[in-house]
Amino acid sequence: MAGLLITFEGPDGAGKTTVLSAIVKQLTQDYGSRLVVTREPGGNQISEAIRHIILDPKNTEMDVRTEALLYAAARRQHINETIAPALAANQVVLCDRFVDSSVAYQGAGREIGEDAVYEMNQFATDGLTPDLTLYFDVPSEVGLARTRTREKAVDRLDAEALSFHQRVRASYLRLAQANPERIRTIDATQPLATVIAEADQLVRRAITQA
Amino acid sequence: MAGLLITFEGPDGAGKTTVLSAIVKQLTQDYGSRLVVTREPGGNQISEAIRHIILDPKNTEMDVRTEALLYAAARRQHINETIAPALAANQVVLCDRFVDSSVAYQGAGREIGEDAVYEMNQFATDGLTPDLTLYFDVPSEVGLARTRTREKAVDRLDAEALSFHQRVRASYLRLAQANPERIRTIDATQPLATVIAEADQLVRRAITQA
Repeated sequence: MAGLLITFEGPDGAGKTTVLSAIVKQLTQDYGSRLVVTREPGGNQISEAIRHIILDPKNTEMDVRTEALLYAAARRQHINETIAPALAANQVVLCDRFVDSSVAYQGAGREIGEDAVYEMNQFATDGLTPDLTLYFDVPSEVGLARTRTREKAVDRLDAEALSFHQRVRASYLRLAQANPERIRTIDATQPLATVIAEADQLVRRAITQA
Repeated sequence: MAGLLITFEGPDGAGKTTVLSAIVKQLTQDYGSRLVVTREPGGNQISEAIRHIILDPKNTEMDVRTEALLYAAARRQHINETIAPALAANQVVLCDRFVDSSVAYQGAGREIGEDAVYEMNQFATDGLTPDLTLYFDVPSEVGLARTRTREKAVDRLDAEALSFHQRVRASYLRLAQANPERIRTIDATQPLATVIAEADQLVRRAITQA
């Protein structure tokens, strides 16, 4: 498969979505229609229906493994309908969250086990791995404090305890250490302009070298 | 976990559901409330919602791996809400289809790969394996001919080609050969009374020996 898959990862409150939207404005000037920006569930009918089951507050009995399988199913369909066709057309796909999020949140955060979640997701991706992952790192206290000042409703994950977020961050740091070629860590406690500049540079370098 | 998990497997038209309902009548006289008869999705809210996505005829874009992950998610929830609690209460669970169906239908029939589907399902079951599996074997031509005389609508799987069903049967035969202790093969071309008697005997023996 040609093209380039670049994923954006990090705990809630790391600012990755803000940074992604900022660099897309800059990159669009230079790369235009080669860029595809997406995030799960990706707008397709099947993944949206799956997401609806995951987020339905009536589904109080949902087991953590059921949830992880549903995320993987939505991911598979997103790959199939959006990511793989774009890569086949030699486009640059910037994706907000991917498999690393499942490993960190379900594997470590919800304590299913990082290896088990990773392996199960290999079934979903059929081996598709990002060419580059930008990991936006912040201490859990900082990330949580940032999400709590947002004016939108606090979602289920935000409401979990600090220890949950510490397990998530520790998992991201292990992933970054184990995959130094793929995952580049950006210190997201820096001023936003600096974080944006670093992310922009890493993405441009990846596109140029591809 | 105490209790006993006994699964009923076989291609469409093998008669396993008919046999299961016949032996349950007989077994209920002797074992009463120890028996739990179930089949996926199992009646719980989450698995039913997942099944709805799988069967929705509008979802024409569904990838075969997405479908396999959704079946696994529904299975996980069915285990969690029905099977595991029954086993913990020392009950005998008779389940119409389980992981072997996914290996045979998705792995071999839809050609995802039997090992890949098996491994992914280990995530869903967290290692829960039936104590006994009755495999009702019929040649694909016989099974298909039987399903086509039924007066209900032909579903998507029934409408697939004979070669699909031959791959499914070949996979079941491989599973039976690879797991001789767990899987007992019953020749389902025999007269129904004989098939019922064999199934009844195997289930009673398993309950007695447990």
